[in-house]
Amino acid sequence: MFMRARRPEQKQQRREAILAAARELAAESGVRNVTLGGVAAAVGLAKSNVVRYFGTREEIYLVLAAEYWRDWADDVLRRLEEGAGIVDALTEPFAERPVLCDLLGHSAINLEHNVSVPAAADFKRGVLGIIGELGAAVERAHPALAEGEGFEVVGVAAGLAGVLYPAANPPPTLVEVYAQNPDLAAACLPFLPTLKRALAAMVAGLPSLR
Amino acid sequence: MFMRARRPEQKQQRREAILAAARELAAESGVRNVTLGGVAAAVGLAKSNVVRYFGTREEIYLVLAAEYWRDWADDVLRRLEEGAGIVDALTEPFAERPVLCDLLGHSAINLEHNVSVPAAADFKRGVLGIIGELGAAVERAHPALAEGEGFEVVGVAAGLAGVLYPAANPPPTLVEVYAQNPDLAAACLPFLPTLKRALAAMVAGLPSLR
Repeated sequence: MFMRARRPEQKQQRREAILAAARELAAESGVRNVTLGGVAAAVGLAKSNVVRYFGTREEIYLVLAAEYWRDWADDVLRRLEEGAGIVDALTEPFAERPVLCDLLGHSAINLEHNVSVPAAADFKRGVLGIIGELGAAVERAHPALAEGEGFEVVGVAAGLAGVLYPAANPPPTLVEVYAQNPDLAAACLPFLPTLKRALAAMVAGLPSLR
Repeated sequence: MFMRARRPEQKQQRREAILAAARELAAESGVRNVTLGGVAAAVGLAKSNVVRYFGTREEIYLVLAAEYWRDWADDVLRRLEEGAGIVDALTEPFAERPVLCDLLGHSAINLEHNVSVPAAADFKRGVLGIIGELGAAVERAHPALAEGEGFEVVGVAAGLAGVLYPAANPPPTLVEVYAQNPDLAAACLPFLPTLKRALAAMVAGLPSLR
């Protein structure tokens, strides 16, 4: 079999070019509307070449989601160190990362299908590690929370961010619905205030469940 | 143009047969895996015939989602009348309706795309009406909640149900991941206890935010 000579650095560069194109396309048109062919065209490769790096479109986005989770977590940890309250520290970095929020909504529904078992396992392990790490940091920053409750707070924050993002960033059909129906538009919940309030209520209420 | 003679009752019957087939296929293989062609084959119609009743696959599922929301709400209202606590009354009927939970996860991500503006507006109006109705009932049953807080509790209950359902009901890839990685399987959150606990914490904490 013919194997193209390619040094590891070149392979790594190409891998990163694919991820960068997928990130940019998701930011422009939403994760849902990006195809493998679109990513391939944006990096100037054939689809058959892209799949040597990532088996499927979903695998590209699962790798990107893991990167965004890490980046989000680093921002949360920095804010906690600077003394921010846990609700602000957890939620504001989501508002600054729309592609992450878009990916969160797609993770369980679409991205964890159509990927290889090792890719899915890596992703799960990475996300659980991050939730555990942040959970412990949240408990240190907010001593009213008992052991394990930080993990729950971080998990719910991410879950709600994934639900609220598409509701607050409606697709063209709903934009038209809202233009025609101001009463429905008024009921469209704003992302950050809604997320903060639900999470603040949960944080305040958890101790009473012990 | 040739129009097939068809009485309104016959049309209504056919419409219901399409919805029943879509409901059954979703229960068997998950909303994500059902195609318009699959629904058409199950009712013994051509795809071109099905789209005379529902413009797209997503429109079939949006109509089904509206029916499930109503059915869920009636169950919640019955439980509240019988004296159930608001957290049990809101969450247990989700656990009994896996197809609804599956649809909730898909609504904002997939179903509200690729549908007509009137279909999306009907759906939004119906769901908002139900959340408002249940929100008021929840406030009556749990007087510690102030006006408007019932709406928030019902909305978060539905949002979290849609997030937790796919996590608790993993696709084949993740089933394999969990079989190979017992530590990851142990971290897979159970649907009803997780939903109840997050919602109970929120209900307990909301009054402290006033």
